[in-house]
Amino acid sequence: MTVERQIFCEAMSRLGAAVNVITLNAEGGPTGFTASAVCSVTDQPPTLLICINRNSRSRSEIEIGDGICVNTLASHQQALSAAFAGPFEMHDRFAQGSWFKLITGAPVLEEAVASFDCRIANIIEVGTHSVLFCEVVAVHMGEPREGLAYFARAYHVLPHPDA
Amino acid sequence: MTVERQIFCEAMSRLGAAVNVITLNAEGGPTGFTASAVCSVTDQPPTLLICINRNSRSRSEIEIGDGICVNTLASHQQALSAAFAGPFEMHDRFAQGSWFKLITGAPVLEEAVASFDCRIANIIEVGTHSVLFCEVVAVHMGEPREGLAYFARAYHVLPHPDA
Repeated sequence: MTVERQIFCEAMSRLGAAVNVITLNAEGGPTGFTASAVCSVTDQPPTLLICINRNSRSRSEIEIGDGICVNTLASHQQALSAAFAGPFEMHDRFAQGSWFKLITGAPVLEEAVASFDCRIANIIEVGTHSVLFCEVVAVHMGEPREGLAYFARAYHVLPHPDA
Repeated sequence: MTVERQIFCEAMSRLGAAVNVITLNAEGGPTGFTASAVCSVTDQPPTLLICINRNSRSRSEIEIGDGICVNTLASHQQALSAAFAGPFEMHDRFAQGSWFKLITGAPVLEEAVASFDCRIANIIEVGTHSVLFCEVVAVHMGEPREGLAYFARAYHVLPHPDA
């Protein structure tokens, strides 16, 4: 017996997390979505993971071997977070922010706190979600910036000592 | 080719995360460690994941089917975070904080922002780390509290609208 879904979601709202925009190049062009379920796995080889709903628009575009970029948002990028979480078309999402490429070709966000350009090494299905294990092939870090966190259903600023 | 380990770790320090103390009942008694690599996976069934170094003291005590509790720390629990991350004996770690039990028997922390009492459903090895997939069987939430985040190698307070 597990807890009721509603209780789980209420408790999970109390687990603070960074806000990220995940991007890749799909057949129809750049695609992306907002995700907070991202975490570091190991530094040998440098690997992070991303949890994504199997019913999301982007999931069908994703395969092992694909390039994918985790763009960890800065405090001033709340509107970008909302754009990539809402019902907007991909073209309109990417109209916000400036983008460039590193190694895999997945869109990298200028002014992110950090961007991780990755190659998907493995995918595991768990219930309603897919867990993407991604090896980091390049990193972009601009100057130190304040981070963006989501906690108790609200955005918060993570101050940077050097920002 | 992946990025250098040092660059990966530097970039990862910019991915803010909640701070958690993970606890379980080992053969020698209660054991626990601090972890920020925790995230929600799916609500069907309610599942979270924890990444733990395979060389950590606690790893050898952990098997599929075990009870394990994720205690998400509140802003006033920085000392507890340090105690469970340092070289201290388990007895001294648990001397800090008040503990009780829910369903699995894993120690549950009073005054945490939220505690997730779990049963380990699966374990996957990735490089230096193990990823524990944990089904949530009970939840403890006290009154709303400020959360604790770690970002840019420093602790930060996550304000709660009702705290």
